[in-house]
Amino acid sequence: MKVDIGNALASEATPGVPEGALDRLDRRVADAHDTIAAGRAASTHGYESLNLPSTVDPEAIRAAVAPFDDCDTLLNVGIGGSALGAATLTDALADDVEAYYLDNVDPEWIEDLLSEIDLESTAVNVVSRSGTTAETLANFLVVREAMDDAGVDWTERTWVTTGEAGNLRNLADQHDLPALDVPDGVPGRFSALSTVGLAAAAFADLDIEAVLAGAGEVADDLSGSLYDTPAYAYGAITYALDVRGAGVNAMMPYAESLETFAEWYAQLSAESLGKDGLGQTPVRALGATDQHSQLQLYRAGPHDKMVTLVRPEERADRAIPETDLEGLSYLGGSTLGDLLDAEFEATEASLAQADLPNVRIEIDEVDERGLGELLYSMEAATILAGELYDVDTFVQPAVEWGKKAARGLLGGGEFEEADAVDQKTELVVE
Amino acid sequence: MKVDIGNALASEATPGVPEGALDRLDRRVADAHDTIAAGRAASTHGYESLNLPSTVDPEAIRAAVAPFDDCDTLLNVGIGGSALGAATLTDALADDVEAYYLDNVDPEWIEDLLSEIDLESTAVNVVSRSGTTAETLANFLVVREAMDDAGVDWTERTWVTTGEAGNLRNLADQHDLPALDVPDGVPGRFSALSTVGLAAAAFADLDIEAVLAGAGEVADDLSGSLYDTPAYAYGAITYALDVRGAGVNAMMPYAESLETFAEWYAQLSAESLGKDGLGQTPVRALGATDQHSQLQLYRAGPHDKMVTLVRPEERADRAIPETDLEGLSYLGGSTLGDLLDAEFEATEASLAQADLPNVRIEIDEVDERGLGELLYSMEAATILAGELYDVDTFVQPAVEWGKKAARGLLGGGEFEEADAVDQKTELVVE
Repeated sequence: MKVDIGNALASEATPGVPEGALDRLDRRVADAHDTIAAGRAASTHGYESLNLPSTVDPEAIRAAVAPFDDCDTLLNVGIGGSALGAATLTDALADDVEAYYLDNVDPEWIEDLLSEIDLESTAVNVVSRSGTTAETLANFLVVREAMDDAGVDWTERTWVTTGEAGNLRNLADQHDLPALDVPDGVPGRFSALSTVGLAAAAFADLDIEAVLAGAGEVADDLSGSLYDTPAYAYGAITYALDVRGAGVNAMMPYAESLETFAEWYAQLSAESLGKDGLGQTPVRALGATDQHSQLQLYRAGPHDKMVTLVRPEERADRAIPETDLEGLSYLGGSTLGDLLDAEFEATEASLAQADLPNVRIEIDEVDERGLGELLYSMEAATILAGELYDVDTFVQPAVEWGKKAARGLLGGGEFEEADAVDQKTELVVE
Repeated sequence: MKVDIGNALASEATPGVPEGALDRLDRRVADAHDTIAAGRAASTHGYESLNLPSTVDPEAIRAAVAPFDDCDTLLNVGIGGSALGAATLTDALADDVEAYYLDNVDPEWIEDLLSEIDLESTAVNVVSRSGTTAETLANFLVVREAMDDAGVDWTERTWVTTGEAGNLRNLADQHDLPALDVPDGVPGRFSALSTVGLAAAAFADLDIEAVLAGAGEVADDLSGSLYDTPAYAYGAITYALDVRGAGVNAMMPYAESLETFAEWYAQLSAESLGKDGLGQTPVRALGATDQHSQLQLYRAGPHDKMVTLVRPEERADRAIPETDLEGLSYLGGSTLGDLLDAEFEATEASLAQADLPNVRIEIDEVDERGLGELLYSMEAATILAGELYDVDTFVQPAVEWGKKAARGLLGGGEFEEADAVDQKTELVVE
């Protein structure tokens, strides 16, 4: 992976980072790297995520999904980190199976989905560390009922991915379901490279060893300088731009296959760094599509943002046919890939020319190895940024507040958070 | 439609708008409304968009798509405003047909899509006002070639939506293709309620008259006070919060069917208001899914943002089955809709309790009438905000710069913009 931060320097962009400031920041990167390395060595909560390439057991994952070899559809029932890592992999690479992610409790959507797929050839992966996530368990109960109604034995079609104890573990024991362990020390948003992200990928016949190999190469190469470590260069520049006023980071891959990656990164960044009044706001964009929309704002709006442009250096291509349509003959002889690359470079130059900071990330290809490299690098970048912000990267207290309020509203116990709902101040215009 | 701005008042949120300031702003809303009304009366460029409910001819749209009655798949070849309005409608409501939007030039994605669909039963809508949009024309050339290769007569399967003259108009004349006019005075991002957005909806058997009726009701009710006009209440509060520091607006519908709506709004807002150093950054979110991700940042991060929560008041529902799973009996007897509503209200309260400004938008239902009302209201809100910012809402000069650079790179003419690409400053870490 290459990270090019040239267009984020103060000589090129506003806000931008002076080269001298970057050199000084690199001393903090060295310290942060020591903290990260020590956390990895001690398997400390959170830092342990960076050890996954060597701690995860791909054989066990393959064994758990082997019984579902005859299924061509997956329902992955999980939300947040229990969905996005797996979805990033299968949305990018799955060819032969359909993987659906039940990461919302919208009844119309779920009803439509259940009526459209063939439950006879569908496998279900229920993912919740605690086994009590309300959305996930409610959806699982609905899916189980639908399978019963369709005359499908759900116990033959389900595996669980969960913690050592709890509802889902008990359910697996009771019905002899394959069960994968959610690893200790790995928060959900850092679990793409664990059982949580890789089981769906294995179900979809992806080469999960190659994903881990791509990640492992980055793991082995982490060093104490942003000038030697692309992941740290990215984490450091996002931090350095944010504290200089770029509070928004638009993650803009130039590949449809990486659209879910941008969503995964948005969770990783927001939930890890959004605390203590700090944290960049991640925005999911897509090139070239959003050039016809967001680019107006990026180029001509406030200088409160940076743009991250991501692309593969190689991709399968398709020639644009020759044409006699007026003014379009220049397209003939080119390929769609040429056009997309020209748009990428034009957008990058257009932002640079407007002095808006931007960063280029390139991977070799959107394949298993490339995705392993990219996901691991973004996790390392986020953890590095957390050290620079000096926040507690691996907790998410603000997510918990709403969970308690919702549970209280549904009669699932006494929670003072639920009382706040009745205190709503109204000023309704209708 | 109801808009509740109670949680955006200074008594509740930081940043927030003092009630006295809102009253004073309402005088500017009255002036802006006069400008808008005068623009509509004179059919001035841009303002003319708000006249679409009475100027568009649904019969002509139905007639253009009638020849494709035997097709069950649509390829809509268009980008930006030539895709998002139509996609908002069909993604929300289409049941019986599949509508795909070729709004990117990613060769792998297009190759996959063309190999998966049955071109025999596919109709193609090529949408470009100028008839020269590089991405759209390149994709159309590729689709046409794929149809030729599959032995399908593309001239029997294609309609165009374009301006009065140009490549696509000539093509339609030459091959006797149905042709719809892109209306004058309506920028692409405001064209959802025109031929551009409604033809795909008609192809998908949606009730386009109901869409227009929902929009028309809002059009008839626009008045000179934000306290009487939900659309203006929304436009005014986004402006008033932005200038007080909420530079980000997270649009968060609680309905999977409205996911594309959030994307459509992001274009509408960014491209209309992102100029002269001004403009909020729209962020697309989705409830309840993003509670497990972005909410941490929204609640505990910087107070540089507002959240817009959108939901239908009614939806089809599904009961959650009773369960003996430990600690989850409270879910039995509830519905998925109850759970989703509890999450909505919990999130709203959780933001209010953290003093983060938020606004609630409710429509009756996600149906044709409700979408017409919502889309028109957001357009009116955006135009009102443009008056308050005092920017030129209906132009997009920054989008054009990148187009010229890309065209120059591909050898489509001499453009000095292309030279900027060679001047890239590099600082590569690999």
